[in-house]
Amino acid sequence: MQAEFDLHPLAVEDASHGHQRPKVDEYGDSLFAVLHIVELHEHDAEVAELSIFAGPNYVLSVRKGTEHGFIAVRERAEREPELLRHGSGFVLYALMDNVVDRYFPVVDALEVELEKLEQRIFSGDSAKANIQELYDLKHKLMVLRHAVEPLIEVTHRLYGGRVPQVCMGTQDYFRDVHDHLLRVSQALDGLRDMVGTAMSVNLSMITLAENEVTKRLASYAALVAIPTMIAGIYGMNFKYMPELDIPWMYPAILALMAALDVYLYGRFRKAGWL
Amino acid sequence: MQAEFDLHPLAVEDASHGHQRPKVDEYGDSLFAVLHIVELHEHDAEVAELSIFAGPNYVLSVRKGTEHGFIAVRERAEREPELLRHGSGFVLYALMDNVVDRYFPVVDALEVELEKLEQRIFSGDSAKANIQELYDLKHKLMVLRHAVEPLIEVTHRLYGGRVPQVCMGTQDYFRDVHDHLLRVSQALDGLRDMVGTAMSVNLSMITLAENEVTKRLASYAALVAIPTMIAGIYGMNFKYMPELDIPWMYPAILALMAALDVYLYGRFRKAGWL
Amino acid sequence: MQAEFDLHPLAVEDASHGHQRPKVDEYGDSLFAVLHIVELHEHDAEVAELSIFAGPNYVLSVRKGTEHGFIAVRERAEREPELLRHGSGFVLYALMDNVVDRYFPVVDALEVELEKLEQRIFSGDSAKANIQELYDLKHKLMVLRHAVEPLIEVTHRLYGGRVPQVCMGTQDYFRDVHDHLLRVSQALDGLRDMVGTAMSVNLSMITLAENEVTKRLASYAALVAIPTMIAGIYGMNFKYMPELDIPWMYPAILALMAALDVYLYGRFRKAGWL
Amino acid sequence: MQAEFDLHPLAVEDASHGHQRPKVDEYGDSLFAVLHIVELHEHDAEVAELSIFAGPNYVLSVRKGTEHGFIAVRERAEREPELLRHGSGFVLYALMDNVVDRYFPVVDALEVELEKLEQRIFSGDSAKANIQELYDLKHKLMVLRHAVEPLIEVTHRLYGGRVPQVCMGTQDYFRDVHDHLLRVSQALDGLRDMVGTAMSVNLSMITLAENEVTKRLASYAALVAIPTMIAGIYGMNFKYMPELDIPWMYPAILALMAALDVYLYGRFRKAGWL
Amino acid sequence: MQAEFDLHPLAVEDASHGHQRPKVDEYGDSLFAVLHIVELHEHDAEVAELSIFAGPNYVLSVRKGTEHGFIAVRERAEREPELLRHGSGFVLYALMDNVVDRYFPVVDALEVELEKLEQRIFSGDSAKANIQELYDLKHKLMVLRHAVEPLIEVTHRLYGGRVPQVCMGTQDYFRDVHDHLLRVSQALDGLRDMVGTAMSVNLSMITLAENEVTKRLASYAALVAIPTMIAGIYGMNFKYMPELDIPWMYPAILALMAALDVYLYGRFRKAGWL
Repeated sequence: MQAEFDLHPLAVEDASHGHQRPKVDEYGDSLFAVLHIVELHEHDAEVAELSIFAGPNYVLSVRKGTEHGFIAVRERAEREPELLRHGSGFVLYALMDNVVDRYFPVVDALEVELEKLEQRIFSGDSAKANIQELYDLKHKLMVLRHAVEPLIEVTHRLYGGRVPQVCMGTQDYFRDVHDHLLRVSQALDGLRDMVGTAMSVNLSMITLAENEVTKRLASYAALVAIPTMIAGIYGMNFKYMPELDIPWMYPAILALMAALDVYLYGRFRKAGWL
Repeated sequence: MQAEFDLHPLAVEDASHGHQRPKVDEYGDSLFAVLHIVELHEHDAEVAELSIFAGPNYVLSVRKGTEHGFIAVRERAEREPELLRHGSGFVLYALMDNVVDRYFPVVDALEVELEKLEQRIFSGDSAKANIQELYDLKHKLMVLRHAVEPLIEVTHRLYGGRVPQVCMGTQDYFRDVHDHLLRVSQALDGLRDMVGTAMSVNLSMITLAENEVTKRLASYAALVAIPTMIAGIYGMNFKYMPELDIPWMYPAILALMAALDVYLYGRFRKAGWL
Repeated sequence: MQAEFDLHPLAVEDASHGHQRPKVDEYGDSLFAVLHIVELHEHDAEVAELSIFAGPNYVLSVRKGTEHGFIAVRERAEREPELLRHGSGFVLYALMDNVVDRYFPVVDALEVELEKLEQRIFSGDSAKANIQELYDLKHKLMVLRHAVEPLIEVTHRLYGGRVPQVCMGTQDYFRDVHDHLLRVSQALDGLRDMVGTAMSVNLSMITLAENEVTKRLASYAALVAIPTMIAGIYGMNFKYMPELDIPWMYPAILALMAALDVYLYGRFRKAGWL
Repeated sequence: MQAEFDLHPLAVEDASHGHQRPKVDEYGDSLFAVLHIVELHEHDAEVAELSIFAGPNYVLSVRKGTEHGFIAVRERAEREPELLRHGSGFVLYALMDNVVDRYFPVVDALEVELEKLEQRIFSGDSAKANIQELYDLKHKLMVLRHAVEPLIEVTHRLYGGRVPQVCMGTQDYFRDVHDHLLRVSQALDGLRDMVGTAMSVNLSMITLAENEVTKRLASYAALVAIPTMIAGIYGMNFKYMPELDIPWMYPAILALMAALDVYLYGRFRKAGWL
Repeated sequence: MQAEFDLHPLAVEDASHGHQRPKVDEYGDSLFAVLHIVELHEHDAEVAELSIFAGPNYVLSVRKGTEHGFIAVRERAEREPELLRHGSGFVLYALMDNVVDRYFPVVDALEVELEKLEQRIFSGDSAKANIQELYDLKHKLMVLRHAVEPLIEVTHRLYGGRVPQVCMGTQDYFRDVHDHLLRVSQALDGLRDMVGTAMSVNLSMITLAENEVTKRLASYAALVAIPTMIAGIYGMNFKYMPELDIPWMYPAILALMAALDVYLYGRFRKAGWL
């Protein structure tokens, strides 16, 4: 097949090896494109690769690591036959557009994930799980960004400046792909920024929680320490401690202890320490 | 309508779908612009979209998600008819100028919000609410930045370099819009920087508050522990403890306890621990 | 006046409205420049605006919000008449140079402020006040940066590339202004970097102070807890506690308590806990 | 040798001195390239230098500080003789490609290292060792980045724009090297970002661990303080304490103490404090 | 002298005033260069200025604030007379090369300083001194970066693009200076990054140290609290406490206290709390 279509050996090597970054390389009058398809899992994001060879009169695509097909692209081509007169450039566009359009639901899913996390962070729940999920989220964002960023500059070259022969006449379409990529990229930048902020917010909430735990503990400690001190005083062995001989003094002291604790409890409550 | 004005299908699709980022695309001799109108709410900022089709002799605008109209633009056009001789370029400018001018009160409102937050942060009040509001503020800034940043480069292309046909003769006006966007952008950058700083200041204040709580607690603990220790000593059961037989010793010890506590209280006060 | 000098309505509007960012706009063969004059106050930095209209044979300047005049510029022009033959370009330069030269003492004042703060931070004093002053300092830096940064690119256009007619023959002078702005900008970047670092240093010092408070408190707690425990032991009511009958045991135990505390105090002191 | 091949004295000096940054300098019609070979050790990354002189009809290479040879390059050249007709440009490419391909296993090793660290961080183990290893990891990343970053711009100049004579006809190959470098660079950026995040996650985990230690300690303190308080109360010396005369009161109080502790233990457990 | 060599008044003013940022300005067919010589002190880095006027047939240099001379440059010129035929461009190069070569030992000294600090940070020693020294180190880096960064762009203009007349024929030499500056700059960027990381590592170590102090304190507190509780129980005044009458009970209880403490000490030790 390499011989039949006169594909460049470096491009064929890239397509069969995989693990390329997204790019569009020109080889003479044909283009070799690599796109990343990103699929979200609970703790990770997986990348599948789509390699496309586009020459003046052919488009070959090679999928790696995804079940997802491109029937929609074929259907679209059949639905809008007048567009097919643009030739292989339009097919290349349709494939890229299809891949790029799949980024949007991924971004949406990540935004929903962040919103859920925000609620949990501000409610002060499960700080530990939040840290891990923010970390995972950051990682997924990185995977998506690595799929999107390199394409931005690349698609720009397909409609502005010296446009490759294959894309002639379809520049408006590639600009549209470029616009979509910029939108994804902007959303990713925003998400990334907010995830970073959410991380530092989480740390602040943890520190704040520590303050509150400290206050609560100290309050309870006080409720125990005060009666202990009073009991200690009346445990002293002085010969002349007149209170010790008063019959109602014992219940009175117990009552005093209880009263002090009730009073302190109230004050701590009011101060928001308990 | 698409047929009548010969609008490009991609532009029409963008205008009807919405969720575009701000941009100005050239289609032949006509322009398609998307602008974001930002409206502030208490916890969020909402974005409405204005799509504008500007050809040599027509300007169409489509609003999405806002009640806000553009009567002011029409009134201005009628008030300054000599400007209308610049044609549809001037109407495009008037619409953009109107949208951009609405960013300033939003920026002002965010600056007022930050100032209020700063006061609360430095007074040490409601650290938790501050975190949440700083986070919300950061989010609103992001929404506004996403509306403004893409337009900066875009408006630059409307007065510098190869100017689109529609904008010929009104470059000075688009440069003015560009200047205003740069001003908004600079204010946003400043706000963003200060919000980040305010967040780390808030964390410092929380840590500082913890120091102060720790000191206060320890002070009170000392006020209780010292009498408890003294009471413990006189609670020992040694046969020969001469103090125990001295009649004035009990009140003397109580006085000593009180005196020690008063002294300690004074010292803690002076050291700023209480 | 607008009519007499044929000033562009947009420029006149900018000059009378104020609140512009620093810029130099070309309108035909004349220039409209906006410069910021920054004056420091204790907690803030204030911005005054200087608008300059420079045409082939006139220079108009409008001040807003400052008492500071430009007599020095007039004196310089009279002192170096040979320079005036460069025309209005030289007067524009002299005004800009005067404004830019006023940035240096502001930068110096901010550097002195930071040095004072550094000393206080490292001495561990007044952490709270330090936070606030660092925040204020950061804000002042931002105001100054917003005055300086936009001018850097702007002055570059006055001596490199396509130079406006008005500035012809005085490029070397505008390059000198550009050099000065770069110097201010570099100093501001340095200051900004060090302020950020000082903020995180302050947080580290606060956390460190907490460590030290915790250690000190624990040391004092130990000095009280040990005698309390010993007293508790001799407060037990066992019938057969031979020590209780030894006459010198009570003072011996008191001495033991004291000895233990002296020993512990020494160890804590040596360990740097007290 | 310098004379025989007419090498530029500055290039010869660079090659013999070593400690150069990666670069490709043109001297007339010959190229002088410096590449870094990075080898990982447990706590560090070591850099060896490869200097290459490539003229129209010769390629000289000088290794410094590595045992690693380039037999593979020679073998490849012999295996694909048709490529050798591209001349010394192809040999230069083969050497560069060999060096760049060695970066991938280093990146992989660092990714594995980070993953191991992530697991340890989230399990809360050995926070101190984690900090040190993250620091070492960051340092290794820096060494690798300093090897890779300068080459990116440099290889770009070997296939785009004005291509040096030596590289004519092999541009596609140098673009392939450039693509590989971009991939390494992207992976490094991602790693760097995640290492930074992992560091702040580690700090959050430490702070969180402190919260948990504080809670646990306070729980145990309560389990001891409550019985101590009760014991203190029944250690008071009041004449009229009716409970003291009830025979089953002593075991009952002991049982009460035990019951309170069991109850508290249960509650602390449920609250996740123990 | 100004008149004799026809030096530009702005350049002369800069040279005599000092406090310029590094730069190379063209005045007609002569160049005016300002370079910074950086000398390290214990807590600071000092900057001396070297101003160079280089015309077609003369080179003047003015030193400010350093004892360091340029005899080495003169010696080199005499040693390599064939290079002097390149004229004043080569002398300018030799001076710049001499200044730039002095940056390397400064960078090396800062790297050694950082390595020492790293060891102290990871050993957990003297956290306070570490903070201050990291701050000083950061400041020195900034001074050096302010000397180096501006020169990078400046030296680029001396060999690439439109080369000034004076530097014609010596471009390879200025590119060599440029390469050296890039190497210094890369080393500084690395250092700066690692200093920032070391700062956050230091904060993590402080927080970690706090955790350890808290654990140790709590362990010791437990060792005291448990015997105190037991003593309290046997200090109760119940009539019927059968243990109190058993003769071996007192030593048995003391032994129990000791045994519990030994057991707890062992557990705390094993858990790494002591």
